[in-house]
Amino acid sequence: MSAEVKPESVSLGPLGPAGAPGPEPLCVLGTGDLGRSLGQRLLRAGYRVVYGSRRPGSCGPLPEGAQVMSHAAAAQAARLVFVCIHRENYAFLEALAPELKGKVLVDVSNNLKKNLHPEANAEYLQRLVPGAHVVKAFNTLSAWTLQTGPSDANRQVHLCGDSAEAKDAVADVAAKLGFGAVDRGAVSAARELEDVPLQLFPQWRLPLRLAAGLTAFFFLYLLLRDVVSKYTSEGKDVSFRIMVSLANKVFPIVSLIMLSLCYLPGVMAAFLQLHRGTKYKRFPEWLDRWMLCRKQLGLLALGFASLHVLYTLIIPIRYYVRFRLSAITVSEIRENRTAAFDTTMAWRTDSYYAVGILGFGLYLLLGITSLPSVSNALSWREFSFIQSKLGFLTLLLCTFHTYLYGWDKFLRASSYRWYTPPGYMLCLLPPSAVLALKLLLLLPCVDRSLARIRQGRERARPREDAEKALLT
Amino acid sequence: MSAEVKPESVSLGPLGPAGAPGPEPLCVLGTGDLGRSLGQRLLRAGYRVVYGSRRPGSCGPLPEGAQVMSHAAAAQAARLVFVCIHRENYAFLEALAPELKGKVLVDVSNNLKKNLHPEANAEYLQRLVPGAHVVKAFNTLSAWTLQTGPSDANRQVHLCGDSAEAKDAVADVAAKLGFGAVDRGAVSAARELEDVPLQLFPQWRLPLRLAAGLTAFFFLYLLLRDVVSKYTSEGKDVSFRIMVSLANKVFPIVSLIMLSLCYLPGVMAAFLQLHRGTKYKRFPEWLDRWMLCRKQLGLLALGFASLHVLYTLIIPIRYYVRFRLSAITVSEIRENRTAAFDTTMAWRTDSYYAVGILGFGLYLLLGITSLPSVSNALSWREFSFIQSKLGFLTLLLCTFHTYLYGWDKFLRASSYRWYTPPGYMLCLLPPSAVLALKLLLLLPCVDRSLARIRQGRERARPREDAEKALLT
Amino acid sequence: MSAEVKPESVSLGPLGPAGAPGPEPLCVLGTGDLGRSLGQRLLRAGYRVVYGSRRPGSCGPLPEGAQVMSHAAAAQAARLVFVCIHRENYAFLEALAPELKGKVLVDVSNNLKKNLHPEANAEYLQRLVPGAHVVKAFNTLSAWTLQTGPSDANRQVHLCGDSAEAKDAVADVAAKLGFGAVDRGAVSAARELEDVPLQLFPQWRLPLRLAAGLTAFFFLYLLLRDVVSKYTSEGKDVSFRIMVSLANKVFPIVSLIMLSLCYLPGVMAAFLQLHRGTKYKRFPEWLDRWMLCRKQLGLLALGFASLHVLYTLIIPIRYYVRFRLSAITVSEIRENRTAAFDTTMAWRTDSYYAVGILGFGLYLLLGITSLPSVSNALSWREFSFIQSKLGFLTLLLCTFHTYLYGWDKFLRASSYRWYTPPGYMLCLLPPSAVLALKLLLLLPCVDRSLARIRQGRERARPREDAEKALLT
Repeated sequence: MSAEVKPESVSLGPLGPAGAPGPEPLCVLGTGDLGRSLGQRLLRAGYRVVYGSRRPGSCGPLPEGAQVMSHAAAAQAARLVFVCIHRENYAFLEALAPELKGKVLVDVSNNLKKNLHPEANAEYLQRLVPGAHVVKAFNTLSAWTLQTGPSDANRQVHLCGDSAEAKDAVADVAAKLGFGAVDRGAVSAARELEDVPLQLFPQWRLPLRLAAGLTAFFFLYLLLRDVVSKYTSEGKDVSFRIMVSLANKVFPIVSLIMLSLCYLPGVMAAFLQLHRGTKYKRFPEWLDRWMLCRKQLGLLALGFASLHVLYTLIIPIRYYVRFRLSAITVSEIRENRTAAFDTTMAWRTDSYYAVGILGFGLYLLLGITSLPSVSNALSWREFSFIQSKLGFLTLLLCTFHTYLYGWDKFLRASSYRWYTPPGYMLCLLPPSAVLALKLLLLLPCVDRSLARIRQGRERARPREDAEKALLT
Repeated sequence: MSAEVKPESVSLGPLGPAGAPGPEPLCVLGTGDLGRSLGQRLLRAGYRVVYGSRRPGSCGPLPEGAQVMSHAAAAQAARLVFVCIHRENYAFLEALAPELKGKVLVDVSNNLKKNLHPEANAEYLQRLVPGAHVVKAFNTLSAWTLQTGPSDANRQVHLCGDSAEAKDAVADVAAKLGFGAVDRGAVSAARELEDVPLQLFPQWRLPLRLAAGLTAFFFLYLLLRDVVSKYTSEGKDVSFRIMVSLANKVFPIVSLIMLSLCYLPGVMAAFLQLHRGTKYKRFPEWLDRWMLCRKQLGLLALGFASLHVLYTLIIPIRYYVRFRLSAITVSEIRENRTAAFDTTMAWRTDSYYAVGILGFGLYLLLGITSLPSVSNALSWREFSFIQSKLGFLTLLLCTFHTYLYGWDKFLRASSYRWYTPPGYMLCLLPPSAVLALKLLLLLPCVDRSLARIRQGRERARPREDAEKALLT
Repeated sequence: MSAEVKPESVSLGPLGPAGAPGPEPLCVLGTGDLGRSLGQRLLRAGYRVVYGSRRPGSCGPLPEGAQVMSHAAAAQAARLVFVCIHRENYAFLEALAPELKGKVLVDVSNNLKKNLHPEANAEYLQRLVPGAHVVKAFNTLSAWTLQTGPSDANRQVHLCGDSAEAKDAVADVAAKLGFGAVDRGAVSAARELEDVPLQLFPQWRLPLRLAAGLTAFFFLYLLLRDVVSKYTSEGKDVSFRIMVSLANKVFPIVSLIMLSLCYLPGVMAAFLQLHRGTKYKRFPEWLDRWMLCRKQLGLLALGFASLHVLYTLIIPIRYYVRFRLSAITVSEIRENRTAAFDTTMAWRTDSYYAVGILGFGLYLLLGITSLPSVSNALSWREFSFIQSKLGFLTLLLCTFHTYLYGWDKFLRASSYRWYTPPGYMLCLLPPSAVLALKLLLLLPCVDRSLARIRQGRERARPREDAEKALLT
């Protein structure tokens, strides 16, 4: 290969059908991994590809059918130029400004960390080559996708740039490669696009940590209360309960707390607005952040609730349960007792299950309407009806379910082993508080004040109001 | 603030970075709640915002960094003008026609009720200012979203208007605010967009009412038959059955009826086409409406089926069930009987469960393919294969499941307490009828006629056909 | 009707509001079923429709309000021409080239089979009428949708063509009919669009066949081992087990095998890359195809796992199970034995259930993130984290679940009835192999080599590397 080196242009392999004059030649500056993957894909889509390289003669293996030239010659050859170079090496592009003038410059670069540079790569590029139309694109796709085509999380090319025509040109190339294009606005949106590949569930971190913390706390709490205390006081080893019984206490507890934490910030925001008398002041930072992760809190709560349901449904096939039920029947016969049917007990447990199932059903409905495609299909009035009205109903049902579970146990001294309350009592506090506060907000007088504030009226500016009245 | 009033222009607060010459100034006519929210958001996105007000000097608190001018001056200052005024006050815009000529006029208004006015607000606006390019946009977003940015049901700005360029300009602003844009066509589509925020599940009303009615009817029917009759005839209080046993009879009954009502209109339409001999005549209004809510009928049926599944799965952990099973074992021992294993019974109940599970599995599949993103990914041939072929299979399995449940109970006189049939018998009628009619349609001769009609051929126009034959 | 025939133009019915000068007249060439459906819909959307027919006077019933002309006159009358003619009859359009020059020609045709013609219909049309702007569109919609409007799988018009303006014009019409438009690139994409309506789950075929084959094999295997062998050796008829017990063995077996087949190709590809020392060589055809149906394999595996869950949860309400449990209690009393509680057994079975539930929970999570709208909302790093990391965790949990199920049964001779291993042992082989291979890949030295290869470096080109080092 290196024998054929020519000063300005090198053609790799026979010019097969892919290399034949296609719809238009595209330039790829940079012969690294990304440049090669992208070029290969462009060639397969029928484009003519011209690589720009510092050393056209010795730039390593390039896809078959592509041409290699000097940077300047390659930039000259095409209307659309892909910059497949690390940001650190952008500086030399300043010298290519004459060749790049009026061209569409596609910035596909990413950074290794957030906030590494004061400005986005694409903005930096636009500053270096002000005469070109910089379009940020393709950077949110994986290298694998660039090579193999759209799949699952990689079906759309997000692009931004200041020139609508340039964006259209890039969108056309994206369409030919099989991708949809999503216009994300001006080049100032590039920072956001460059952060996308670096993020790993940023909005899920806080909720996940919270869930992990709550799970760990209640697991230890119940382990000490239910297993260790049993062992130390009665010498009985019930450690096998950890796998199902204990887990099935922790999951619903965490789920209910998370669900109430999902509805608490909204209630707090309402009280804050009532207190301030206006909706135009921003909420404190922490409340804003809390409100932004409500969806994640709710979905995690749903996950724990689902585990609770599955753990509950396998109860009757557990060895321990079957053993105990059989033992009860056996002892009843041996001691010649006849158990009496307790109608209250039947009512109570059946209600407990029924309310739980209905609550879980609504929970699922909330989860389904959180799916992007479903919430997109709803009007915001419909969405807020489901997430707010039905959401509070869900919280109410689940809280009621837990109260029914407790029933009158809170009266019995034996419930407070080691002077600690059982887990379900602890977990009832947050939802009860949220429901009580919500109830307050639903009082007609409070509700009216809040509605007025949310329609944009302000309270307690008597002087200005009087002035306005005079002027109007 | 009022001390600084100048006749034409008022600058609020220091001209910070947001107020600095941004990409372009935008005009917001109207300083009410909507205008303020929108302006605040535009400022944060980096735009320069100019408010137009009747009294620039005394229009109340505006977002920091915005300018206030008279209506005319503000309209003059920007290429894009947001009209944040109630439709009732549009009239004065007629006088601004010279300033608004050639400008993009964004109508964001909504109405309090449907059909309040003879023409859509945007059409009215276009009539008032014929020289401007009216674009209807942003009205489907909640005020909250306008202030805080895209979320869940508020990710897309739907827009319509007669000028493609004007729509592009508005789509650009939407993109900068973080929204996607959906082009909905000409300004004549405005009415549809203005109705969106007013609707609350319009297509779900009929199915929901039907489900509520059926549930109430069967609940009362079974309450009388199973609980009240037991009390009056035997004096036994089995009211605790209401919570689970009764509910678990009502839910599958309603589910099966709803599922068959989901497939009945399709079958009826086929027979109507066969009878008429053409597919070009419109169906009667009621049939059209019925066919349009089939999806909702099916999804509600799936919801009821899911509740039935959960209610069934908790049967073995119910107090009543455990009590009865134990009592049976105890009585067996005390009376020294040995129950014989009944293979038919084992076959029957296992088949009953297995068919039910398979039916529910298909049911779920139908539900999943109804998700907008999944059905969008299917070709219509694939979609109709699932919803039609697999749908009828689901109906068949669920009906069979119910027949297996009944088995030979219909032969026993004791089944007809108070001379009424049990609920499951009643609910078998609609699906059996639908399946029978569908079977008729699958007969080769009927199937062939129907296929011919659906390919567009018409029957029974002998005279015209003859004529055509002569002419061809 | 035929009395009013005029040589060039026929108006059908009174020119009602639909026939009044609308936004623009559209031409429909062809008066067959498709042409009539489309025309009817266009008329309802407010367009003026002009049909082009070979015999304007005798072309059968057309929608009310439409005009009929000769082909040439109709083509002349409109800027946008719908070609509703079978490809076989396109030839005559060549003669219309002068009238069609500069017009937008919408090709809505489909074929009866794939690869019937050497070029796509739209490409053929473009070749026949090079002066027109051919746009392929509407062909992926069902005729029913064309008549009644968008629904479910028919909300988007996919279009492709070489002229952006022509595509915009067609997208406008689509928007007026209520459809979204998806630009699929140049006219060369037409073949792909023409194949869409012909496909019926092409990517699901292989996985479905595999699932059917595995199900059939294991069903027969277990039928012989568990039911037939019992009958021949002990004369006991346990055939009732087929419906639930046997199915509940087959489903998890098939599910686990399918899940491991979903992760096997990825592991194989990694070893192939390690072996070759480069990522730039294409994988063998069969591996490529296998990798492309991983999602389908995984979703089918999830379906089987869900059935396994439901079949397991109904165990305690089965007649057979209740009978046996009662019989055990009865025999315990009659023989005056007292069963001892086995803590190991309790630990083992509870762990078995708990691990299974957690595995299924992750399984569900994988399924949910496979929904198009969810995976679109994820960055590829997030998507691959879930599908790869959590996917292998799922496989690990499910495999461990099965090992716990087996426990020490593999030591007992009675497990190998008829010298064959039980089904669950067979199904443990593929996942164990996949997990072992994956473990190998996670060894630091192997992991590092693979990472280097995937970053685009190549191994074993010592001469070139040295050369480059000199030049750089």
